[in-house]
Amino acid sequence: MHENEVSIPGDERFFVRKGPFSLQQLAKAASAEIYISGKSCGHEGGDHSAVVITGVAPLQVAGQSEISFLDNRRYLSLLKSTKAGVVIVAPAFVDQVPESCVALVTEHPYLAWANVAALYFPFSPPNPGIHPTAIIAESAHIGSGVEIGPYVVIEDNVKVGDGCFVGSHTLIAKGVSIGKNCHIASHVSISHAIMGCGVRLYPGVRIGQDGFGFAVSPNGFVSVPQIGRVIIEDGVEIGANTTIDRGSVQDTVIGAGSRIDNLVQIGHNVKMGKCCIVVSQAGISGSTELEDFVTIAAQAGLIGHIKIGKKARIGAQCGVMSDVEAGSDVIGSPAMPFREFFRNVAALRKLAKKPTN
Amino acid sequence: MHENEVSIPGDERFFVRKGPFSLQQLAKAASAEIYISGKSCGHEGGDHSAVVITGVAPLQVAGQSEISFLDNRRYLSLLKSTKAGVVIVAPAFVDQVPESCVALVTEHPYLAWANVAALYFPFSPPNPGIHPTAIIAESAHIGSGVEIGPYVVIEDNVKVGDGCFVGSHTLIAKGVSIGKNCHIASHVSISHAIMGCGVRLYPGVRIGQDGFGFAVSPNGFVSVPQIGRVIIEDGVEIGANTTIDRGSVQDTVIGAGSRIDNLVQIGHNVKMGKCCIVVSQAGISGSTELEDFVTIAAQAGLIGHIKIGKKARIGAQCGVMSDVEAGSDVIGSPAMPFREFFRNVAALRKLAKKPTN
Amino acid sequence: MHENEVSIPGDERFFVRKGPFSLQQLAKAASAEIYISGKSCGHEGGDHSAVVITGVAPLQVAGQSEISFLDNRRYLSLLKSTKAGVVIVAPAFVDQVPESCVALVTEHPYLAWANVAALYFPFSPPNPGIHPTAIIAESAHIGSGVEIGPYVVIEDNVKVGDGCFVGSHTLIAKGVSIGKNCHIASHVSISHAIMGCGVRLYPGVRIGQDGFGFAVSPNGFVSVPQIGRVIIEDGVEIGANTTIDRGSVQDTVIGAGSRIDNLVQIGHNVKMGKCCIVVSQAGISGSTELEDFVTIAAQAGLIGHIKIGKKARIGAQCGVMSDVEAGSDVIGSPAMPFREFFRNVAALRKLAKKPTN
Repeated sequence: MHENEVSIPGDERFFVRKGPFSLQQLAKAASAEIYISGKSCGHEGGDHSAVVITGVAPLQVAGQSEISFLDNRRYLSLLKSTKAGVVIVAPAFVDQVPESCVALVTEHPYLAWANVAALYFPFSPPNPGIHPTAIIAESAHIGSGVEIGPYVVIEDNVKVGDGCFVGSHTLIAKGVSIGKNCHIASHVSISHAIMGCGVRLYPGVRIGQDGFGFAVSPNGFVSVPQIGRVIIEDGVEIGANTTIDRGSVQDTVIGAGSRIDNLVQIGHNVKMGKCCIVVSQAGISGSTELEDFVTIAAQAGLIGHIKIGKKARIGAQCGVMSDVEAGSDVIGSPAMPFREFFRNVAALRKLAKKPTN
Repeated sequence: MHENEVSIPGDERFFVRKGPFSLQQLAKAASAEIYISGKSCGHEGGDHSAVVITGVAPLQVAGQSEISFLDNRRYLSLLKSTKAGVVIVAPAFVDQVPESCVALVTEHPYLAWANVAALYFPFSPPNPGIHPTAIIAESAHIGSGVEIGPYVVIEDNVKVGDGCFVGSHTLIAKGVSIGKNCHIASHVSISHAIMGCGVRLYPGVRIGQDGFGFAVSPNGFVSVPQIGRVIIEDGVEIGANTTIDRGSVQDTVIGAGSRIDNLVQIGHNVKMGKCCIVVSQAGISGSTELEDFVTIAAQAGLIGHIKIGKKARIGAQCGVMSDVEAGSDVIGSPAMPFREFFRNVAALRKLAKKPTN
Repeated sequence: MHENEVSIPGDERFFVRKGPFSLQQLAKAASAEIYISGKSCGHEGGDHSAVVITGVAPLQVAGQSEISFLDNRRYLSLLKSTKAGVVIVAPAFVDQVPESCVALVTEHPYLAWANVAALYFPFSPPNPGIHPTAIIAESAHIGSGVEIGPYVVIEDNVKVGDGCFVGSHTLIAKGVSIGKNCHIASHVSISHAIMGCGVRLYPGVRIGQDGFGFAVSPNGFVSVPQIGRVIIEDGVEIGANTTIDRGSVQDTVIGAGSRIDNLVQIGHNVKMGKCCIVVSQAGISGSTELEDFVTIAAQAGLIGHIKIGKKARIGAQCGVMSDVEAGSDVIGSPAMPFREFFRNVAALRKLAKKPTN
């Protein structure tokens, strides 16, 4: 097998590519200024105004008819030697762009890349229709332009909004409400949930099962009825095999625009604000609250019943045992400010090296 | 979307509510004494004996016809201002209950809450019947009163006990035996397993696949046949997307009454005693043994071939590399007694702050 | 339930046992020398040449007609008292084998055990045929000798090689290519992937979904089209509920012979070399590269865009924030050499115990 020797983005077995696009179209999508040989040509492209770009590629394999980008200083050497026809870069790197290459310069190269790549590879809309093997309760309401895959099960009184996609083998249990233009992948299970518009759920997501709630009795554990819901606001994305339990008494809430990665655990009654980021394998215990724009890095864990302030950032593998102030950055287990953590690491290293130890 | 503005437990789209119940019925279910204006009225309720309560609600939204509870001192201010008709509290908080509110007083308020909530929201029994799309081998034995959902697959010689529920898209592979009154959610896969009665498996649970066992050879890794089973005793609960591998030579055993949360990994040959608790994203490596009543908090990891003594408690994110004595509490990576861990944290902080560092 | 009192490997409800096998056959499979009463008898077995062994069992329950093995010094006391007819051991333990027991002596007892156990319990080949409920696109190409289970969905232009097994409820999305003799369990979803031969995927594996890629804009997060693939080379195994995202621009690559355990997260663009080991609940962030023979223990986490050198070993719960040199062993969070980590642990303990603290 030699499939991995050449890594070409947009393999046509999996993707449909649009284009080509002109330099001006690309500059517009990127909200970028055109630079040639290190000098600005505004938004038209001067001598290169007739340039046409057929596709995208990484710096190291892109050719004269392709566009690429640099977002991470670590790959600067690849920029210097790229053969790409056009490259998106930050102003600081314009000087490093080869002569042969047109630069699209912007303060936000990754955002520009997102928009340019979406020109060539737009998200595909659903292909409306309901597969004959889908089992849909009579009392369910399915909007217009909805695609429902094979072996889907949709129970009583479910609402699926216009323009949704529901992948194969997914279960939407009774009473669940799903807004417009949601993308629900295969093998998902959803119960006890109210979802907004534009939500994306990846394969194997579990939403709405009982939280981990039980009381101790002399005869063993007694389950506490979990009678809350899961509220997922507009534009949320939830990664593969992630689990979100429904509330015990109050609701579990995922705030609008939040992005949750794969294999994340969200306990019952968690309230997450808008545009939070939770990276893979992180876990948030019951009743903890995140204000808006909180970032939780991979494998971090938060105990229950605490509050994380607006724009706080929780580092990877961090163990958070108490409230975190808005705007602060913490790491370590137990969590502490970034600077303190690295000062501790250095102090301990120094101590352990002392000959008297 | 404004669904999350008011969080009402028991949304009738998802739950069927029983009731109302009288104050006496509630006191009995809670095994609690009735207090009015801070004074005991025994089990009858004196002037309030005619009070009738229609539902449950959290302290901050409960009204005069609802019952609520306080279990966590953190929410004491909510108790003081609650408008609930009845509230379940521990004796220490009776004085904080508003005049307008009847108190049900018990040493075990969370257990009382579990029992009261179950009055209003009893666990629903299966709705017997086999969906026509379920594929059930002729040699399988399905008990009476069993509900089997759509697109379930049950292979040869499987036994499913009376009163079980099997959710949609679940696979029960050949030879598996399941006791009475088990609740198996959707998208579960079970093989090589013997399960007791009253077991609950949440969506996406994986039971009985090969453990991670291979030998190193000059030509790469050689898989070791995994020829043990998974034994799940009575009353066990296993959370969403949790994985339990079957034994390599001996069995993997989950002791009666144990509660395992979401996204937990249990390796081959693990033996877990009775009433253990394993919180989300924890992992137990192969051949490790837990005695009864062990608690493993979230994201903790145990290496293989060690023994955790009775009632030991392993803290969140703890890394356990050796045996843990019965009754002890450990935390940190590597694991150490709680007191030592926090003493270390304090000592390191002090060291790092010294000007000479 | 008393099922767990006796733990017999190879329960016939789940396994088909071959045999019996002669001592010579076992010695050959084990590539071992026969020892009787502590003395070598070469490969024939002398007085015991007529011994016939019917099955395998762990040391503590094996009888005279069974073969067992010792691979872990921790269980040496079980060897001394075993009643097994034959036992596989390393040369160092020959003297500990009871008089009644024939020893098969090899430097690689676990590999020998793998080969002997596979005599009795060979991996079962697929039972060719396509279940009538499987939905297979006309444009898909299914090889010969393939078994496809119930409720499988195979989309357009998929290729499934000869001799593959595809378990129930699995989705293979359009364009995916699968080599010969792969074993794909139930409830798997695969998209945007090219797989080699002899690959094994366990239940609930998620391959090929979008990576966690988005740019920040004034209006919230903007998804970056993920236009790479997942390349899985020959002989790879991937554990239950593990998630592997497809590349963003380049491919995500899992090198030949690598073994990945349950609940592992592999981010977009990760490149893994040959024969790597990734233990359960570990996570590898986007664009990180592993050279050949790297081992990553359970719950370890690697940040993105770093490189792990050949044969490096990353300890359990390790947090790796920078490149790791070939051949080195690291542990701790942040990662450091094993010796430094344990020296730090000791130094801190000593410091914290000082009376002045």
